[in-house]
Amino acid sequence: MTEQEVIVREVLPEDAAGLAATLKQLTTETDFITRDEDSPHMSAQEMAVFIEQKAQSFNEICLVAKIGDNVAGVLMISAHSHTRINHIGEIFLAVLKDYWGYGLGQLLMTAAIDWAEHSGVIRRLELTVQRRNAKAVHIYEKFGFKIEGIKKRGAKTKNGEFLDVYLMGKLID
Amino acid sequence: MTEQEVIVREVLPEDAAGLAATLKQLTTETDFITRDEDSPHMSAQEMAVFIEQKAQSFNEICLVAKIGDNVAGVLMISAHSHTRINHIGEIFLAVLKDYWGYGLGQLLMTAAIDWAEHSGVIRRLELTVQRRNAKAVHIYEKFGFKIEGIKKRGAKTKNGEFLDVYLMGKLID
Repeated sequence: MTEQEVIVREVLPEDAAGLAATLKQLTTETDFITRDEDSPHMSAQEMAVFIEQKAQSFNEICLVAKIGDNVAGVLMISAHSHTRINHIGEIFLAVLKDYWGYGLGQLLMTAAIDWAEHSGVIRRLELTVQRRNAKAVHIYEKFGFKIEGIKKRGAKTKNGEFLDVYLMGKLID
Repeated sequence: MTEQEVIVREVLPEDAAGLAATLKQLTTETDFITRDEDSPHMSAQEMAVFIEQKAQSFNEICLVAKIGDNVAGVLMISAHSHTRINHIGEIFLAVLKDYWGYGLGQLLMTAAIDWAEHSGVIRRLELTVQRRNAKAVHIYEKFGFKIEGIKKRGAKTKNGEFLDVYLMGKLID
């Protein structure tokens, strides 16, 4: 991946097929996320609907890191519409294995926090991360996320071994 | 509510309208839950579909406390189908104000834990509860739930005041 330009931006309708393929590929590459190969996958058509919904949402966004035509990484902020909790954005962040180590996750997180700070509605970002995923925990801490709790048996491996999961949060002001 | 029989059981199709009405009423009675009056409410028809889905699920259940024809309280266990987290049941529990103080919540929780222990799949129950809702926190602790973390700004009041929310978990073996 030498001298390739990375573009981080809000996902566009034209990314539907690429994003669907990337999310599917992610489930085969890492067991740090909750979806696996057997989870139902969105088709490109379903993804197009999803992208349109995010574009219309006042408290949600989907960002992609693009390298050429490839969706190399993705960061989604999901939120509820209920007034009591519509200030909480939940983050999902993942980067394809081929692009690990180039700081794409950090580019995406920088853009996400900037979006949240300018959203006028998000006042808390949160995420869950497996305790064993030390590299990710470290990056989240670097961005100001604090470990707020430990979910015992918050996930399990393919072999059924239970894992601790951290709940991390960051206040947005 | 003297000498009225309470029946706690899995929700049935015949409860659809009653459960929809109860969930709607709850949003006007308490600000301890995340839905409010402005949240979209399920119609009786939508509730019938929901009840059918729960009945077919291997890791979810909806229990009701019935007094006569009234759905006085409800406990839902929601779960994901993804293998990595399908052992986690998230609890929502609420009782109509008219029936507070009669132990309906505890009857529902007893039934829910019994169901989870016999489910063969649920190995963790979790819930969130506002820190200020001391009575509920106390009851959950009595049932073996432990405070695993504190979500800063995990909810807000009608007036926009931020609230701490506890994450509580209980292991099922």
